[in-house]
Amino acid sequence: MKKRLYNARILSMKENEEIYFGEVHTDGNRISYIGKANGAPAGQSFNEEIDCEGNVLMPGFKNAHTHSGMTAFRSLADDLNLQDWLNNEIFPREAKMSGEDCYHLTKLAILEYLTSGVTAIEDMYLTPETIADACIEMGMRCELVSGLNKFGPTLDVLEERYNKLNGKHPLIGFKMGLHAEYTCDRELLENTAKLIAKYKAPMYVHMSETKTEVDGCIERYGKTPVALFDELGLFDYGGVIYHGVWTTPEDRAILKKRGVMVVSNPASNAKLASGIAPITDYIKEGIPVGLGTDGPSSNNCLDMFREMFLVSALGKIKEMDPLAVPATEVLKMATVNGSKSLEHKDTDVLDTGKLADIIMIDLHQPNMQPVLNIPNNIVYSGSKTNIKMTMIDGNILYYNGEFKNVDVDEIYSKTEEIMNRLK
Amino acid sequence: MKKRLYNARILSMKENEEIYFGEVHTDGNRISYIGKANGAPAGQSFNEEIDCEGNVLMPGFKNAHTHSGMTAFRSLADDLNLQDWLNNEIFPREAKMSGEDCYHLTKLAILEYLTSGVTAIEDMYLTPETIADACIEMGMRCELVSGLNKFGPTLDVLEERYNKLNGKHPLIGFKMGLHAEYTCDRELLENTAKLIAKYKAPMYVHMSETKTEVDGCIERYGKTPVALFDELGLFDYGGVIYHGVWTTPEDRAILKKRGVMVVSNPASNAKLASGIAPITDYIKEGIPVGLGTDGPSSNNCLDMFREMFLVSALGKIKEMDPLAVPATEVLKMATVNGSKSLEHKDTDVLDTGKLADIIMIDLHQPNMQPVLNIPNNIVYSGSKTNIKMTMIDGNILYYNGEFKNVDVDEIYSKTEEIMNRLK
Repeated sequence: MKKRLYNARILSMKENEEIYFGEVHTDGNRISYIGKANGAPAGQSFNEEIDCEGNVLMPGFKNAHTHSGMTAFRSLADDLNLQDWLNNEIFPREAKMSGEDCYHLTKLAILEYLTSGVTAIEDMYLTPETIADACIEMGMRCELVSGLNKFGPTLDVLEERYNKLNGKHPLIGFKMGLHAEYTCDRELLENTAKLIAKYKAPMYVHMSETKTEVDGCIERYGKTPVALFDELGLFDYGGVIYHGVWTTPEDRAILKKRGVMVVSNPASNAKLASGIAPITDYIKEGIPVGLGTDGPSSNNCLDMFREMFLVSALGKIKEMDPLAVPATEVLKMATVNGSKSLEHKDTDVLDTGKLADIIMIDLHQPNMQPVLNIPNNIVYSGSKTNIKMTMIDGNILYYNGEFKNVDVDEIYSKTEEIMNRLK
Repeated sequence: MKKRLYNARILSMKENEEIYFGEVHTDGNRISYIGKANGAPAGQSFNEEIDCEGNVLMPGFKNAHTHSGMTAFRSLADDLNLQDWLNNEIFPREAKMSGEDCYHLTKLAILEYLTSGVTAIEDMYLTPETIADACIEMGMRCELVSGLNKFGPTLDVLEERYNKLNGKHPLIGFKMGLHAEYTCDRELLENTAKLIAKYKAPMYVHMSETKTEVDGCIERYGKTPVALFDELGLFDYGGVIYHGVWTTPEDRAILKKRGVMVVSNPASNAKLASGIAPITDYIKEGIPVGLGTDGPSSNNCLDMFREMFLVSALGKIKEMDPLAVPATEVLKMATVNGSKSLEHKDTDVLDTGKLADIIMIDLHQPNMQPVLNIPNNIVYSGSKTNIKMTMIDGNILYYNGEFKNVDVDEIYSKTEEIMNRLK
């Protein structure tokens, strides 16, 4: 399938490239041409041609931290602190959730990602196999992340999944990860470090999300979670910490040295009153920051526009400086840095040969008018109403408010049924 | 025109009334029946019947503080502090803006309000006469608020507008207001107090928005802006302060005593790094809080869903308490308290005899599924994509993504032209 998207404003996200009028051609799942209309190869034929009407084409947003299957718990247990919410509301219900439940609940989340321009997710949840099935069926790109802890499957399962799920399908990958320091014991951390070393794999983990968590770790081990993981060799091959709200300067020096990046989840951190991450420090110190929605039970929606506005607005509040975390930096977090976190080299920017994970931003909406500064419009005024198209791997999955080849009502009724069983 | 909206979930916002399945009838601009289907008067005929498909009908959101005409400055001067932004970027451009410019720019803002379920605005901007024209033409309910200061029109003009614009049209009212303490001198404040007394009118004013503003007032007068206005008699008939980020306990005692309420603008306060308002204190102390977007140059969008999430999320962060500012309180701010600020007694809740300012919330979207707790879904997960209908004064102005009887492209091109002239 060859597609031509013409009459577009192109925001490639390539460093130092300005927005220009042009077109994008796709051939299968790759971009075969991107540039001005008059530079395009002549005499081509396409299966589909779309007039973008001056709207913006840009790389899709990467939701670099989520727990998709938690859609069943949306609005079920709001207004609680993280530990109460997790121990009293979430863990007991998750114990009753099957792999098939997780499959259906993930499908609901994917619908929401598509409305928000998300073209790839980094998903840490219970049953990676059925999450993979939901993603493959619906065409979503996904890195599954192990959330191993002392209550669940063992390290053998993690290793088996790592070998089985990496290579299962072009849309799917699997990362080694732990749920968090406070849900693992020392033995599990040490054994995970051996596995990390065996595969030279980066580590993905919830870390420094709340002050309680950091204080508890210091009580248990005499050091912060970042310092502990570093000492145990868990960051020897880099990785990603989710949240990173309560890192110290010493922690950040470790992250920088080990090539560990941060994925920030500002809506979840605010709603659970966990705190505001030191984004300005990360930027200053050269530690890349990606963005995630976290799960739909703590956020409660899966909307990258909310995260983009919030990471900037909360950053400005934290520093009491309106210049902090500017829009251009935020767009980079939601696209290029997300790809870095996913280790997807070919989805970061729009360029010839890159994967065709492309979204179209509708400028013909009142919140995008007048068209003076498009990056600022997207970050400060943008909303899901502006997502006109979401294309993943060359396939248009959402266009003009319609999902392609999906029985939406069946997904809704299935998740309602599961919610009623688990609530 | 009689309309019937049936098969709906009704969220009336009447105190202690649960959500129920039922229908709403309108006759002209009023609600003639609201209740269960089997209680409706028999043998009626309607001009229009709408199947709500189980979606929610509720009172429209009230945007209780905005400067609609600033749409020309969206994304023009971001990432600045309030004083730089106002003095160097906004005031010089506003000096070049005509009444006709303001009319067109307000029309663009009204389109955006309709997409966000806003059925009434409290608008402080340059030329109230032409703002009124835009609102009447497009069917928006509006209280115009004087933004008098020492640089603009005199008190005579204010009094003339007060008498001329109140009563001009059922959709329009006019409030006495001042821009802010720091843009007025003592003489103007004292003379305004006399006019307030003459008409027994409440006072509307930007107040305690930034720490700089409060510190400056203490330097000039030896007291906070709230204490100063109280001493001068400007709060003798109640009123509204916009922002109220930096109020002291003594300030709040004055507000409570004088029946002055607060309209909070969390997105603007965050983006300009002004601070986080003490919403929990206002709630505890019985001072009603309404919500506003502020103008599209400081926010930069006019989206009540963003404000609803933020007032709660920032409140939780400020108190480091996830129980702070719960969803039910937020919904009240956006509806009932907004009406109180506007002094619109008949738009606060859905009830027989009330004005038909009604919105329909689309639950058939992934971000509203599953349907477990509707108020929490709206506040924590809601987005403009969920506004299926906006009805003002019995007229459906926005339905299924379409504006009724509006040439959208003409409004866009007009505002683009003005923006290019002023930028």
